[in-house]
Amino acid sequence: MKIINKSDLKSLRRSVDQGTEEQRKSVQDIIAQVKTRGDEAVKEYTERFDQASLETFKVSKEEFEQAYASLDGAFVQILQEAADNIRAFHEKQKTTSWFDSSEDGTLLGQKITPIDAAGVYVPGGTAAYPSSVFMNVIPAQVAGVERVVMVTPPGKDGKVPDGVLLAAQILGVEDVFKVGGAQAIAALAYGTETIPSVDKITGPGNVFVALAKREVFGDVDIDMIAGPSEIAILADETARAEEIAADLLSQAEHDARSSSVLVTTSERLAKAVEKEVQSQLDSLPRADIARKSVEDYGMIALCETWAEAVDTINEIAPEHLEIVSEDPFQELGKIKHAGAIFLGPYSSEPVGDYFAGPNHVLPTNGTARFSSPLNVDDFVKKSSVISYSRQALETNVDKIARFARLEGLEAHARAVETRKERWK
Amino acid sequence: MKIINKSDLKSLRRSVDQGTEEQRKSVQDIIAQVKTRGDEAVKEYTERFDQASLETFKVSKEEFEQAYASLDGAFVQILQEAADNIRAFHEKQKTTSWFDSSEDGTLLGQKITPIDAAGVYVPGGTAAYPSSVFMNVIPAQVAGVERVVMVTPPGKDGKVPDGVLLAAQILGVEDVFKVGGAQAIAALAYGTETIPSVDKITGPGNVFVALAKREVFGDVDIDMIAGPSEIAILADETARAEEIAADLLSQAEHDARSSSVLVTTSERLAKAVEKEVQSQLDSLPRADIARKSVEDYGMIALCETWAEAVDTINEIAPEHLEIVSEDPFQELGKIKHAGAIFLGPYSSEPVGDYFAGPNHVLPTNGTARFSSPLNVDDFVKKSSVISYSRQALETNVDKIARFARLEGLEAHARAVETRKERWK
Repeated sequence: MKIINKSDLKSLRRSVDQGTEEQRKSVQDIIAQVKTRGDEAVKEYTERFDQASLETFKVSKEEFEQAYASLDGAFVQILQEAADNIRAFHEKQKTTSWFDSSEDGTLLGQKITPIDAAGVYVPGGTAAYPSSVFMNVIPAQVAGVERVVMVTPPGKDGKVPDGVLLAAQILGVEDVFKVGGAQAIAALAYGTETIPSVDKITGPGNVFVALAKREVFGDVDIDMIAGPSEIAILADETARAEEIAADLLSQAEHDARSSSVLVTTSERLAKAVEKEVQSQLDSLPRADIARKSVEDYGMIALCETWAEAVDTINEIAPEHLEIVSEDPFQELGKIKHAGAIFLGPYSSEPVGDYFAGPNHVLPTNGTARFSSPLNVDDFVKKSSVISYSRQALETNVDKIARFARLEGLEAHARAVETRKERWK
Repeated sequence: MKIINKSDLKSLRRSVDQGTEEQRKSVQDIIAQVKTRGDEAVKEYTERFDQASLETFKVSKEEFEQAYASLDGAFVQILQEAADNIRAFHEKQKTTSWFDSSEDGTLLGQKITPIDAAGVYVPGGTAAYPSSVFMNVIPAQVAGVERVVMVTPPGKDGKVPDGVLLAAQILGVEDVFKVGGAQAIAALAYGTETIPSVDKITGPGNVFVALAKREVFGDVDIDMIAGPSEIAILADETARAEEIAADLLSQAEHDARSSSVLVTTSERLAKAVEKEVQSQLDSLPRADIARKSVEDYGMIALCETWAEAVDTINEIAPEHLEIVSEDPFQELGKIKHAGAIFLGPYSSEPVGDYFAGPNHVLPTNGTARFSSPLNVDDFVKKSSVISYSRQALETNVDKIARFARLEGLEAHARAVETRKERWK
C-alpha cells in the first residue's frame, strides 16, 4: 500500500463490466427463451449452466427443515438478532401518505403504496450469504410488499446453501426457487408456470445477472448494478494503526478489484498503517485476493490539511467511510458523499455488514454522489393526489387555459373550460 | 373510440423506442467526441443537427432580458403563480436526516444530502414548454441542489423560446445553454470547457436524447425514460360525458401514441362519451394527432361491477387517473398503481399539468407499478450513519465475528476482534 500525496491521487473509478458482445447476445437469447417457453427453458439452462437436473425449482418444506436442523441453535440466535436489528432500523425509514388542504376546498397530497411483488437474487458460489437475504428482503417486507420471491443458483447436487435457506425461513419467505443466472432474472421479470413475476429485482450477481437486469429494466425496476466493494478511512493521529489496517483489509479480501484507501494528515499513522497492512496480510486465508486488491486499488493519501483530507473523501464518494478522529461527529456535516458513514473507533465496517441494522447494499464506484443505500423507499412508490375544488377552478380556469394555449395545447385548455358550464 | 368489455381489454403497454442500431452507434460516437473534444465537438454537432452556428452556447443576460420584455405582464404573473404553487407542493416532500440513540451509547441514523448539480433537458421543437422547466427545476431547488444547468436546442436562428427563458428567469436559473440532442446529454454528463458536468440528468427528449441518457447512466443518474402520455378515467353515472370526453382528448392531442381510456360501469355514460369524443375531435387544431391516438390507443371499457372497474385501473397502472364518481375519496384506498390521481369533476387533468402544484413528470407505460412522479427525493441521497459504542461492540463482537466467518470472510472477523485490545 503506497503513501501518496493528494495531488497524486488518481481516480479510483473502475469501469463497469458491460460484458462482451457475445455475453450480451447470450443473455438476450436466454431472456427470449424464458419469456416464451417458461419453465422448460429455465430447466434446460439450469442443466447447462449449473449442471443441476431439477424436477421442481421451488424449495420444499423438507429442504427448509433440513437446513434449520443442520445449523446449531446459537447461530440461529445470532441470525435472528441480526434480522431484528436490521428490521428495527428499516422500520424508521417508513414514510407516510400526506395531504394538505386549502381553505378553498382543494386538497393536494402524496399517497404511498408498496410495490406488489419484489424479487431477490441471492448469489451462489462458494460462500453462502445469509446477510444478503436479510439486506434485500427486510426493506421490502417493511415497505409492505406482499410477495417476496427469492432465487438462488443450485449446486451440482441441486441444493442451495443452508445459511441462505435459514435466513429465508427467519424472514418467513416461502417462495424460494433454485434458479440462477440470466434465466432467474428473466423468470422474475416475466414469470413462468411456477415462478411468479415481480415488479422490482434487487440483489448482486455475476456479469450475466447484471446484464440480464439491464435488459429487463423498464419492464420491471432494478437496483443499481453494484461494483467492487470500497472503503475509505478518514483518520487523524488518534487512530490505532492495527485497527485501521484490519478494517482496510476487511474490504480488500472481498475482491481483487476492491479498493481500500486511508486519508490522513498524520505521517506517523500513514507509515504505521503501511507496515501493519503488510504484516496482517500474510496470515489471511484470502491473502492472494487481498494482496492484489491492496496493490492495485489500495492507497494512503497523506494530506497537508484536514480540510484537504475531507475534500479527498468527498471526491472519492466512497461506499463505506470510517471517520476515526478526535471528534468524529464534528466531521459529519462536512461529508457530502458516502454510502455509509462509520463514526469512531468501535464502528469497524463489518459491524454494518451483518449486525448493526443499516443496509449493506450501498452505492459503489462514486455513485454515492447520487444514490443511496437500499432502503424502504426503494420498495414503495408515490402517487400525487389532486382534488381541485369548484372555487379553485373558478378562480384559476382562465390562467390554466392561457398557459395551455401558450404551449400549443388547445384540447387542454378546452378540458378545463368545459367545467364553466357548471357555474353558468 | 370503441366500447369494449373488460375481457377484451388488451394490454396498453407500448414497446419502448430502443432506437435503431445506427442511431445507437451514432449516439455513442457523439458522446465519445464530446467527451474528448468538448465544446469544439458540441459546436460541430449543433451546426450539423440544429443548423445553428453559435459562438457561445450560454444564454446571455441580453437574451434573458429580451425574453422577459417580449411576454406580457399578465402572463408573467400566471407563470409566477404556477411556480409558487409547484414550489409549495414540493416543499412538503422534503425529508430530514434522523437518528436513533440506544442506551448503550450507539447511534444509528440516516443523513440526507442534496446532489451537487442537476441537469435539465428542455426539449425544443415547435412548442415551448415553460412547464417542463418548472417541473424539473423546482424539485431540485427545493432539495437544495446548488447548481442547476439547463440545456435546450436552439432554432436555426440560434435562439431558444422566450417562454423557456422566462421560466428559467423566474426560477433564478442562470446556467442555460443552447445545446440539444445527444451532444447536450454528453456535455451534462462529462462537462466541457463551458458547460459544467452534473450528477443527475432529467427531462424528456427525442430518441437520441433518450438513447444518450441510457448510455451515460451509471456515470450520472437519470430519470425514467418517458413514454407517450396516458389518461385513464374511472367514472360512474354521475359523470358528465362532455367533460370526460374533453379530458380524454387532452391527452390524445399530445401524441399519436398517447392512450386515453374510460373505465365505467355505466352504459349510458359509455355511449355518450363515445359520441362526444367524435364531435369534439373535429374542431381541435391537433385533430389529426388526437384522432390517430384515439383510434389506436383509445377505448371505453364497460365493466360489470365497480370492483372490476377498479381492478382494470390497477392493471393499467395509468400515468394520469381521474376518478369521477359519487364519492371519489372513498375509492382512493383501492387504487394501487397510478402516477397522479385526480379526484372529482373539477380536477380536470390539465389542472395538474401546469398549475395545481404536483409534478407533471410521471411514470408512463405501466411503470407506476414501481415508480413515482419526479419529486424532491430524486435530488437527494441518503447516507447511513453508524456510531457503535464500546459497550455495544463488547456485547456483540463475537456474534459479528462468527457471522463473518460463516460467510467465509476472515478479515472481517479479525477487524472487529482487533478492538478487543482496547478492553483487555
